Amino acid sequence: MIKKLVLHPDRLFSSDEKTREVARALYHKVKELPIISPHGHTDPSWFSKNLPFKNATELLIKPDHYVFRMLYSHGVTLEDLGLSSREGNDVETDDRKIWHILAEKYYLFRGTPSRMWLDTVFSEVFGFDVELCAATADHYYDTINAALATDAYRPRALFERFNIECLSTTESPLNDLTEHKTINNSNWNGRVISAYRPDPVVDPEFEGFVSAIKTFGELTSEDTSTFSGYLAAHRKRRAYFKATGVTSTDHGHPSAKTAYLEQNDIEALYALVISGEASPEQAELFRAHMLTEMACMSIEDGLVMQLHPGVSRNHNQSVFKRFGRDKGADIPLQTSYVEQLKPLLDKYGTDPQLTLILFTLDETSYSRELAPLAGHYPCLRLGPPWWFHDSPEGMRRFRQQTTETAGFYNTVGFNDDTRGFLSIPARHDVARRMDCNWLAELVCDHRLTLDEAEELAVELAYTLAKKAYKL
Amino acid sequence: MIKKLVLHPDRLFSSDEKTREVARALYHKVKELPIISPHGHTDPSWFSKNLPFKNATELLIKPDHYVFRMLYSHGVTLEDLGLSSREGNDVETDDRKIWHILAEKYYLFRGTPSRMWLDTVFSEVFGFDVELCAATADHYYDTINAALATDAYRPRALFERFNIECLSTTESPLNDLTEHKTINNSNWNGRVISAYRPDPVVDPEFEGFVSAIKTFGELTSEDTSTFSGYLAAHRKRRAYFKATGVTSTDHGHPSAKTAYLEQNDIEALYALVISGEASPEQAELFRAHMLTEMACMSIEDGLVMQLHPGVSRNHNQSVFKRFGRDKGADIPLQTSYVEQLKPLLDKYGTDPQLTLILFTLDETSYSRELAPLAGHYPCLRLGPPWWFHDSPEGMRRFRQQTTETAGFYNTVGFNDDTRGFLSIPARHDVARRMDCNWLAELVCDHRLTLDEAEELAVELAYTLAKKAYKL
Amino acid sequence: MIKKLVLHPDRLFSSDEKTREVARALYHKVKELPIISPHGHTDPSWFSKNLPFKNATELLIKPDHYVFRMLYSHGVTLEDLGLSSREGNDVETDDRKIWHILAEKYYLFRGTPSRMWLDTVFSEVFGFDVELCAATADHYYDTINAALATDAYRPRALFERFNIECLSTTESPLNDLTEHKTINNSNWNGRVISAYRPDPVVDPEFEGFVSAIKTFGELTSEDTSTFSGYLAAHRKRRAYFKATGVTSTDHGHPSAKTAYLEQNDIEALYALVISGEASPEQAELFRAHMLTEMACMSIEDGLVMQLHPGVSRNHNQSVFKRFGRDKGADIPLQTSYVEQLKPLLDKYGTDPQLTLILFTLDETSYSRELAPLAGHYPCLRLGPPWWFHDSPEGMRRFRQQTTETAGFYNTVGFNDDTRGFLSIPARHDVARRMDCNWLAELVCDHRLTLDEAEELAVELAYTLAKKAYKL
Repeated sequence: MIKKLVLHPDRLFSSDEKTREVARALYHKVKELPIISPHGHTDPSWFSKNLPFKNATELLIKPDHYVFRMLYSHGVTLEDLGLSSREGNDVETDDRKIWHILAEKYYLFRGTPSRMWLDTVFSEVFGFDVELCAATADHYYDTINAALATDAYRPRALFERFNIECLSTTESPLNDLTEHKTINNSNWNGRVISAYRPDPVVDPEFEGFVSAIKTFGELTSEDTSTFSGYLAAHRKRRAYFKATGVTSTDHGHPSAKTAYLEQNDIEALYALVISGEASPEQAELFRAHMLTEMACMSIEDGLVMQLHPGVSRNHNQSVFKRFGRDKGADIPLQTSYVEQLKPLLDKYGTDPQLTLILFTLDETSYSRELAPLAGHYPCLRLGPPWWFHDSPEGMRRFRQQTTETAGFYNTVGFNDDTRGFLSIPARHDVARRMDCNWLAELVCDHRLTLDEAEELAVELAYTLAKKAYKL
Repeated sequence: MIKKLVLHPDRLFSSDEKTREVARALYHKVKELPIISPHGHTDPSWFSKNLPFKNATELLIKPDHYVFRMLYSHGVTLEDLGLSSREGNDVETDDRKIWHILAEKYYLFRGTPSRMWLDTVFSEVFGFDVELCAATADHYYDTINAALATDAYRPRALFERFNIECLSTTESPLNDLTEHKTINNSNWNGRVISAYRPDPVVDPEFEGFVSAIKTFGELTSEDTSTFSGYLAAHRKRRAYFKATGVTSTDHGHPSAKTAYLEQNDIEALYALVISGEASPEQAELFRAHMLTEMACMSIEDGLVMQLHPGVSRNHNQSVFKRFGRDKGADIPLQTSYVEQLKPLLDKYGTDPQLTLILFTLDETSYSRELAPLAGHYPCLRLGPPWWFHDSPEGMRRFRQQTTETAGFYNTVGFNDDTRGFLSIPARHDVARRMDCNWLAELVCDHRLTLDEAEELAVELAYTLAKKAYKL
Repeated sequence: MIKKLVLHPDRLFSSDEKTREVARALYHKVKELPIISPHGHTDPSWFSKNLPFKNATELLIKPDHYVFRMLYSHGVTLEDLGLSSREGNDVETDDRKIWHILAEKYYLFRGTPSRMWLDTVFSEVFGFDVELCAATADHYYDTINAALATDAYRPRALFERFNIECLSTTESPLNDLTEHKTINNSNWNGRVISAYRPDPVVDPEFEGFVSAIKTFGELTSEDTSTFSGYLAAHRKRRAYFKATGVTSTDHGHPSAKTAYLEQNDIEALYALVISGEASPEQAELFRAHMLTEMACMSIEDGLVMQLHPGVSRNHNQSVFKRFGRDKGADIPLQTSYVEQLKPLLDKYGTDPQLTLILFTLDETSYSRELAPLAGHYPCLRLGPPWWFHDSPEGMRRFRQQTTETAGFYNTVGFNDDTRGFLSIPARHDVARRMDCNWLAELVCDHRLTLDEAEELAVELAYTLAKKAYKL
């Protein structure tokens, strides 16, 4: 039996009629606001080249680790999904067949945000009115592919249709930002900027770190065999990024540990890490010191700093060996902030020029550490619920656990953080709905007045992100 | 004043009328489904011997550590409750008097699941329509005892009345499963199976470990003075259990730590632990290695593996000295899974033959570790909320914190895990009601359609447990 | 535009009509009950001297770290708020100007309990019917100051108006309790007692510890150069406190660690700590041992023991250097109880004379550690949600996460723990509303009967605190 696909206009709102009515009214005020997407991982070449997307599988399955991790958890191999393995053998090449796997296993996604995002894309972007299932798989595949071949579905057209005011991607300091510069120099008005993500030249455990440091020196004409040359290379490269419109940096560390070493000590440590001989503890200490250096540079150049800590990357050894990074096998870790951030905060925490946006995958830190820290330090702001928690229940917990101590104005609106371009409006819509519903609850039990909630709805959907990221 | 005892037909459903209506409709579809009880601690001799239960106190108070821990927390001694102490002195022997204590202190249980389970037993199993209190204590005691003396209240009759399709107990490898074999060979059709719980011969800190290893060797005719003989003994004993209908193993470890040592190292460690001289760290390492060996054997013989980590056992030194284990003094500990499980997962985590069901008493791991792990690794499934969290709020948190990342199909339905036979239907009923209410919430805010919720209600109440445990 | 200030009579009650109706009925039974405030930090000289409060800024901003931490987090300096720095320079002295800052930034507090407490004070204590904002700042400032100059707003008059039955402050053993004795000896009937808070002479890391130990000896005529003399000094001073009406002790430690050392070891450790040479680990061990000694003394003298662990004090180094302690820069830490409390519990945990009330800032311990501990040990009770969690959502989480394992009768009612005298009724009112709403939810999904909820509402609002603190 083929089922109707219906996006209910009140989805995600409380079933309590009074609350729902307020949520609906608040949402009405924000649903058409432009999208600010200040942090994400879309591919800038989509917008510089503006070529059509290839097909449904290449667009919606292969780049989306949320999708393939769930399928993998129920026995579908990554080979079956056409992901190219390092050995290159036995990989499914029939994209239609791969699409059928998603269709047949689509029930696995019940209750997950992936399901909600995909259904929103299916309904709102492609106009489907039946659900994806085995019986509709071909209809879906053919319809999506036909649409993608039209001009209306090219990246720039979709960017405009999605009402995106600004989209940020994330690049390594070694990236020359050719795509972004092409976009800047084109006659297209879309604003697509990068973020300075220096992990490949800051994390001694990153694959290829030693040679990246050499490249970093060549690229900047700085002597990266010395620590001072290395810092100078960062300063130059940050300026280079900033000149293209970049307003933020991003740091993906295993922990939130910061440090500030004496001059001699950091120089010795730097010599060690660029020799490729650092122990895990020394690598951690180097990353910790560098966060403090990055804060220093942010005070100088005004780039907003983001810290995304607490992930055990590539946990599945067999998948990593065969398929490499970002294959749905990253797992959150316990993360502490209070003692870990202290060295950075002792040095720069009261500087009015600094903005440091903190994220977490460890929700226990919301009420215990992050809200108390952000509700005190002038430089700190709380990033939205991230990754595994970028979901209705995750968003609800974030507001329930941070608002009372940090308020709303120490938060920074929503980040979609996605590789899935088409899911951007769907993700922002979920955030807007959940925030409006949370505000409606506060109105209905008289913790906020309606006009305060109306102001806050706009702040959470649009203004706070724009201000925090200086966009 | 004697109060009415009424089990409201809508208990545990949302007070929002729309949600309640959906919850009621879903519950209607599952409330009569047979009970699958794949993990628990009832006494198999009840069903092999089918003798009448002795009286209300022996049946409902003395085996139930939920009941006596609460009474103890308000100054009732375990002697007052008739629990036999090791010294044997001053123990209350008048079971009617003990029953009166429960009646007088019954208000302490307000808001707890014990209260709900007991009231359900009182109403549904014994037909009471007044509440337990001092004034009704004798009426209760006499009525229950009279019922227990009749054939309709013998274990097998209750098993059938409870509509139990399969009940699993838990036994040590040293147990010869006589009771289970008696049941199998009887003309009674009830399915009562065991689970292979090797802690007494896997945990060097278990009381009597050294001599248990010797017995283990004698029982299997294997040379348990060598590690290879010890592994062979496990294989034989697992086969013995399996031949009686067993489908699972169960492992109750202080942590989720796993390891895989080199051959020489594990042989040396084994020699040490069977000498009784292992340090706590060595004992932990041995348990860790053995979990990986157990996973290997599960791949060979198909037994589903369960891990129940994270309890500080026998925390109250004085109670342990006088009364021994399982006296309500076990307290949960912080438990980590991500790094701890990695050695086992590195070795066997992608083997399609393995099922490893993870439990936790540390709810912080739900969204941070367990759902992300189970939403990726094909072998992993999430056990239901356990022990202290086997309660309405505990079940709500479990679904709220796991569904969005792991979905429903990486969970395995409900486990009652009880020593209290009469509470089994009450516990499953709570789980069914809470799951139906959760599904109803998702329907009412349009995250699921009603027909999806109807399918899922049956999965959660019946099918998922049956499949996961191969029953 | 100036907005109305309205305290809705149903604030904090569920928007579900059935639940709200029950919550309203329960609240009606408790809202007029006298206030028991068994733990807090008001200044006893207010009640001994009964002088008028100076002005709105001195009363409502300067003592309230909740208020200035939020303003500080958005770039208002502590100098701007008139807080006296150690250097003493550049501090704002115009209290009206400071009041304007609060008025202009009042939107920052949306969704926080501070906002709710202040609005309640504005409306119920001062009778305002417009909201605080830039346009009403002078009106507010002048009206409040005029009221404070009248007899009806002197401390004793407000104490009576607030219907406070008993108010506890907190003092060091070195305090001579002159203010309390003055109150006791006055013809005023208000009950204002202290609590014995020995941190300055128990914590070797407390500022001035070494000299405090000397003063402690002089004050008690005991030889505090020996450990036995030191213990004798505690006993004398506890007796002195008790003679003025004190019923409790309070311990604010970085962790919940307890220990019990051998006689020789503790004597050696004591010698070290009073020399000022103890390492952080030794200081921690001394505090740990002293908690066990304090439990011993509580068994002797009947003082109820309170433990408030888990705060990183004075986290902002720059603020601490310039402004000292208690400036909104204390941040919670991960806190463990299970292994940490074991030494104390092993020694005194089953003594029926001991009451030990546990607090936490780490909400993860509620369901995992604190409720299981308090639901077992006869001496343990759970303090209410504390500090950052003394808020509607914090209170909801406390009940949701502790009730099912510890019940209601292992909790001790509400503590306001405040330095802000005027906020006391507002804080108790929030607690009563939230508890009534929680009970109403349990009534509406049939986990409690209405008459049970009515009894419990009174217990939670009044009786449990009175009993637990022996007031």
